[in-house]
Amino acid sequence: MYNAKPEDKFTFGLWTIGNPGADPFGTTVRERLTPSQIVEILAEVGAWGVNFHDNDLVPIDATPVERDQIITDFKKVLADSGIVVPMATTNLFSDPAFRDGAFTSNDPKVRAYAIHKTMRAMDLGAEFGAKVYVFWGGREGTETDAGKSALDAGKWFREAINYLCEYNIDQGYDYKFALEPKPNEPRGDIYLPTVGSALGFIATLDHSDMVGVNPEVAHEHMSGLNFMHAIAQAWDAGKLFHIDLNDQKIGRYDQDFRFAAESIKQAFYIVKFLEDVGYDGSRHFDAHAYRSSDLEDVKAFASGCIRSYLILKEKAEKFNADSEIQGLLAEITTDDGSMSQYVGQYSSEKAAALKDYGFDRVELGRRGQPYERLDQLVFELLMGVR
Amino acid sequence: MYNAKPEDKFTFGLWTIGNPGADPFGTTVRERLTPSQIVEILAEVGAWGVNFHDNDLVPIDATPVERDQIITDFKKVLADSGIVVPMATTNLFSDPAFRDGAFTSNDPKVRAYAIHKTMRAMDLGAEFGAKVYVFWGGREGTETDAGKSALDAGKWFREAINYLCEYNIDQGYDYKFALEPKPNEPRGDIYLPTVGSALGFIATLDHSDMVGVNPEVAHEHMSGLNFMHAIAQAWDAGKLFHIDLNDQKIGRYDQDFRFAAESIKQAFYIVKFLEDVGYDGSRHFDAHAYRSSDLEDVKAFASGCIRSYLILKEKAEKFNADSEIQGLLAEITTDDGSMSQYVGQYSSEKAAALKDYGFDRVELGRRGQPYERLDQLVFELLMGVR
Amino acid sequence: MYNAKPEDKFTFGLWTIGNPGADPFGTTVRERLTPSQIVEILAEVGAWGVNFHDNDLVPIDATPVERDQIITDFKKVLADSGIVVPMATTNLFSDPAFRDGAFTSNDPKVRAYAIHKTMRAMDLGAEFGAKVYVFWGGREGTETDAGKSALDAGKWFREAINYLCEYNIDQGYDYKFALEPKPNEPRGDIYLPTVGSALGFIATLDHSDMVGVNPEVAHEHMSGLNFMHAIAQAWDAGKLFHIDLNDQKIGRYDQDFRFAAESIKQAFYIVKFLEDVGYDGSRHFDAHAYRSSDLEDVKAFASGCIRSYLILKEKAEKFNADSEIQGLLAEITTDDGSMSQYVGQYSSEKAAALKDYGFDRVELGRRGQPYERLDQLVFELLMGVR
Amino acid sequence: MYNAKPEDKFTFGLWTIGNPGADPFGTTVRERLTPSQIVEILAEVGAWGVNFHDNDLVPIDATPVERDQIITDFKKVLADSGIVVPMATTNLFSDPAFRDGAFTSNDPKVRAYAIHKTMRAMDLGAEFGAKVYVFWGGREGTETDAGKSALDAGKWFREAINYLCEYNIDQGYDYKFALEPKPNEPRGDIYLPTVGSALGFIATLDHSDMVGVNPEVAHEHMSGLNFMHAIAQAWDAGKLFHIDLNDQKIGRYDQDFRFAAESIKQAFYIVKFLEDVGYDGSRHFDAHAYRSSDLEDVKAFASGCIRSYLILKEKAEKFNADSEIQGLLAEITTDDGSMSQYVGQYSSEKAAALKDYGFDRVELGRRGQPYERLDQLVFELLMGVR
Repeated sequence: MYNAKPEDKFTFGLWTIGNPGADPFGTTVRERLTPSQIVEILAEVGAWGVNFHDNDLVPIDATPVERDQIITDFKKVLADSGIVVPMATTNLFSDPAFRDGAFTSNDPKVRAYAIHKTMRAMDLGAEFGAKVYVFWGGREGTETDAGKSALDAGKWFREAINYLCEYNIDQGYDYKFALEPKPNEPRGDIYLPTVGSALGFIATLDHSDMVGVNPEVAHEHMSGLNFMHAIAQAWDAGKLFHIDLNDQKIGRYDQDFRFAAESIKQAFYIVKFLEDVGYDGSRHFDAHAYRSSDLEDVKAFASGCIRSYLILKEKAEKFNADSEIQGLLAEITTDDGSMSQYVGQYSSEKAAALKDYGFDRVELGRRGQPYERLDQLVFELLMGVR
Repeated sequence: MYNAKPEDKFTFGLWTIGNPGADPFGTTVRERLTPSQIVEILAEVGAWGVNFHDNDLVPIDATPVERDQIITDFKKVLADSGIVVPMATTNLFSDPAFRDGAFTSNDPKVRAYAIHKTMRAMDLGAEFGAKVYVFWGGREGTETDAGKSALDAGKWFREAINYLCEYNIDQGYDYKFALEPKPNEPRGDIYLPTVGSALGFIATLDHSDMVGVNPEVAHEHMSGLNFMHAIAQAWDAGKLFHIDLNDQKIGRYDQDFRFAAESIKQAFYIVKFLEDVGYDGSRHFDAHAYRSSDLEDVKAFASGCIRSYLILKEKAEKFNADSEIQGLLAEITTDDGSMSQYVGQYSSEKAAALKDYGFDRVELGRRGQPYERLDQLVFELLMGVR
Repeated sequence: MYNAKPEDKFTFGLWTIGNPGADPFGTTVRERLTPSQIVEILAEVGAWGVNFHDNDLVPIDATPVERDQIITDFKKVLADSGIVVPMATTNLFSDPAFRDGAFTSNDPKVRAYAIHKTMRAMDLGAEFGAKVYVFWGGREGTETDAGKSALDAGKWFREAINYLCEYNIDQGYDYKFALEPKPNEPRGDIYLPTVGSALGFIATLDHSDMVGVNPEVAHEHMSGLNFMHAIAQAWDAGKLFHIDLNDQKIGRYDQDFRFAAESIKQAFYIVKFLEDVGYDGSRHFDAHAYRSSDLEDVKAFASGCIRSYLILKEKAEKFNADSEIQGLLAEITTDDGSMSQYVGQYSSEKAAALKDYGFDRVELGRRGQPYERLDQLVFELLMGVR
Repeated sequence: MYNAKPEDKFTFGLWTIGNPGADPFGTTVRERLTPSQIVEILAEVGAWGVNFHDNDLVPIDATPVERDQIITDFKKVLADSGIVVPMATTNLFSDPAFRDGAFTSNDPKVRAYAIHKTMRAMDLGAEFGAKVYVFWGGREGTETDAGKSALDAGKWFREAINYLCEYNIDQGYDYKFALEPKPNEPRGDIYLPTVGSALGFIATLDHSDMVGVNPEVAHEHMSGLNFMHAIAQAWDAGKLFHIDLNDQKIGRYDQDFRFAAESIKQAFYIVKFLEDVGYDGSRHFDAHAYRSSDLEDVKAFASGCIRSYLILKEKAEKFNADSEIQGLLAEITTDDGSMSQYVGQYSSEKAAALKDYGFDRVELGRRGQPYERLDQLVFELLMGVR
């Protein structure tokens, strides 16, 4: 039970399983795994795919020859394991060159280098058949707003994405771009901090059809926002191109906890939403094991992400099949159709009639909704006691 | 010094000066002021305009005759005082009818009533010459996501705004609509929680040109987001139609503190941004005095909002004129132009050349930026010691 | 199943079931219930006790005769229903007199009035046999630190509690006092904001043995703190005299949600802690139904609090009986006893030996702990799938 | 102006100036400075003292001979520069051995090693004349509460501190111990998360007189707590043994920003409090420069911390000398003495008289306080425009 199937499209990043456990207050505690070792673990836990930043696979200072050898070797590992590469991305944050950002660095040479590095990383991803290309602008931001113009930064960011969209077309890569918002850390404030702001930004791009979002649970939770609402807005706009599943407490450092480790109800609504609407992209777990974990526990972490998703998927099916819950929902959303003649597509006549309609607001205000009862049923369904 | 002029366009809501000091744990402590008394205070402190929800001026149960008398009387008060009405809005949250939201209530009758009430309130605002119409969807949200479909809610919200845009055109009101985001309170989670999400939503509207945002400092601060970044994105998109200036601590109940009462640096960057870009809309103070204040102190509160803005405006001018600061900025953003041939408008040739360009990333990473020095200069400029 | 028994000691406040649904943005939506109606509901859902603020039962302007009649009537209601009154408290926040606090108001007359009102409320509670007396200093705080000395406020607060401890002794009431911390709302910052700060304060009192804490889940969650850790510290200090069970999201307005409505894992650890240590005080639900609820839904809310506690109590029993979990815990906390000769009660010899001991820190650092595996088992146990 | 004097007692840690700019998403960007280079910078910016963790000075794997040489060399550097060492502390968090905590690790050998390492670090600090010994329990906590007993952890923590207090006495070191609270990061939840919880814990120690707190601005801000209130409580309890001055936004990762870089008003009240009460301990800046800074900018950062403190100290003096502000304060706290006969030291007679006193609560509730006016005056004083 709760074993992954390829059609579940569970993916991990090389950097997630491979995380060696360093943090701002301590050194690495686990040995670094090779990409090949990581893929072995992924195959073992039932993952469908693996994603990477360019430098997760190819060191930043690799020679072209080394690069080619790494690619050849990794393709073989993938072929042997059956693991695919649905998504690729660029590391634009680790190297000191990006200490003030990449596409929005105040240094024009760094901005150009960031585009240069991204084109090369897009080439790399394309070699592995990746179809989604993620942009996480982790250092696109500020600690002091005295030193960088938010308008210029927005303009630079747009120019970079526009340029790379053209490159995508030019090379025939057919990538869908997915912007990944985050509010802060490692910068004091990061540009495009929320899923909403990314959606707003996309509307200003030259090729806005090519660009969507890669929402991450933990990143919206950092701001205390409702993640399911965020992905619903993205879905409504046709922009949910990828998703990063993990977890964390509101208002904290970037925790990247195991999916559903913290916010069980939210995780349930996330899974339910994805399954109900028929999202068919990757379920990518952008999380890592605790620093206290050893390698065995890293595997338990990976397999836990998958199991929790599948357990919650089963709960979502039960929710949809539960007659008491569905009865309450029918009652809650009941519509006698009497208002439909006044609303919907506008006309002057409708508006006039609606303005004259004699609403009994006191009566409207008397009607309560059984949301406590419904919410308690959800709790009990989640607990497995109904 | 620091006295308001009409061209500063300082405005207050009737509900701000008129706030009688109730909160969830206590009753009102100040006598309710009439709209006329409020306008007197506004004139006294130098405000340019006054804004209102429909029911701030006309009680929800007023007869048509009472309504007309109130309008006549209030027009006279305004004419006498010289105070204008640049913005109007609808109260879609106080009445029990809206206990589950207005445009997104699960009850179709409530949704229709919300549109009905808004059309009437638009009529009211138009009688006073208001040119901006604000939508604050305070109860458009949930406490439990079991009971309301986020997709349906988004659809209903869009239908309502589309309908009202048509009504705006139909009546020739020429309103600009301004959506006011808020993440939570009084609902557990409110739809369109951030400026970004409102911008994303606007892109899906039939008349997206007619609709912009009304960002409120405190609402973004509730989520810990950088407000200046938010209004920069709105400005960049041509969507900064109105602004609500106030303050509050991150991650708290809705405090609506006096502008700059809490976040002095952020307030400085907000004022600097508005003045630098030439924003010419209202500077609306959506704040209220502490519950501990008496009427004299309410006046001190109102006049404090204005004075703080003007003091910070003067600081912004000093920042722009400070040669050490400007020298640092020139150094920070220096551009020798050598990259311009590779970036900007895309071409295959440029991209190829850029991909081949030999960046010295180690050298790029060596360059630090004097942001600490700059930020300290800002601190000292704000403190008045340079 | 999951029906309350008296020995579970579930209690509610008159103000919780009786909450009429007003909030800062809207009026009441439910009819006010009489104390007698509330007790009926409590009996119906299986509560053991009811708690009250003085003015929940006796209006602030009641005459002595009215007061006595109310007491007589309510005693009869209680006798008929079998509901007891284990806790009482004072409303020191609703009346405008307390707009700047009660024991820490800058007005010495208000400070004296607060003590006067508390003594009378202690008399009232004693008439009903209450044995715990709660102090929630909801307005003991500031919005601006310019206007009140934190040192004076601390001194005034201590003097008031010392005085009331003496009154308790003098009257032979035998109350245990329980201080209830909260970080903010309705004040910008409230004194004694956390369980820890209350414990620190208690250590400075004349009768510190008489005074403990009344931790509230939602209040610690507002600050993002771990509530179970907080009550563990209180328990360790012998100070867990009462507990307020409810729920809320981190970093938000005071939500007072149904227990376990938001933070399922935290609620599990809270229940597990209380049951494991044998806490035998009231399980008090200081929560209220959503504003959208009607009376039926208020009952569902009340019964949901109780059911969720009992469901989680059953989960805690399963945790303690789960051999895989207990096996992991044994492994995690294994102790070969080899260190016991160096630690524990200090001696110079031990310290010298310990300083000379040759620790192999590299070896110590190699040992990971299976916390991911354990945490996943807890998730699956909670979900009812193991 | 704003130059430090020795009596200002400004100190920095070796780890603050020496921070090489790594973060969870990027490598170091600045060259590591030797302790001697750091002391040179400190002398240059006018610091009085330098503090260190054992391994800031002596590498964890140094031989006894290397250790002695380092000590000899560093003593010379200090003597030459005139910089003193007022505080020392232990690094119980960087090494993998401490991945599950130190005094509260589930591994008894790690717990013993932590005490062993602390005794040796106390010896080291004593060699340099340090008189305050700080305990920051950065990894004393959990990510999952399934795996560690909060009660056991509290007991182990207490045993460790009790043991080390005895060692302190035994060796005649005369250290004052200062516990430094932090709510989270690098652990999900850290024990003793707030100043208050540390004060509560201290009350349970064998030598509670020997132990106080080392509050850090940023650590309380992470939880959104009012830092000045926290140090006032510590001062009131006689426990303010040390202080860490820095800054950060509420609800974020550990930012360690330059003092007053973010929360200007709070910084003002902190400085005013310390100066008003005559705190005579170190003003320790536990902060570091932005990752974008180069060495010049690190110096600007250090000197900025000092200048900001001195600027705010001058503001505090102005506040105390401002007749309008002092007049308002006198009005706010006015006391006609009429209540003094009822309160203060308890007696049955006083209590009886107070219970009978006829308070006019309506009248009490009419009195407002001019807090908005006062707060605005503070803003203007801070801005240097009065």
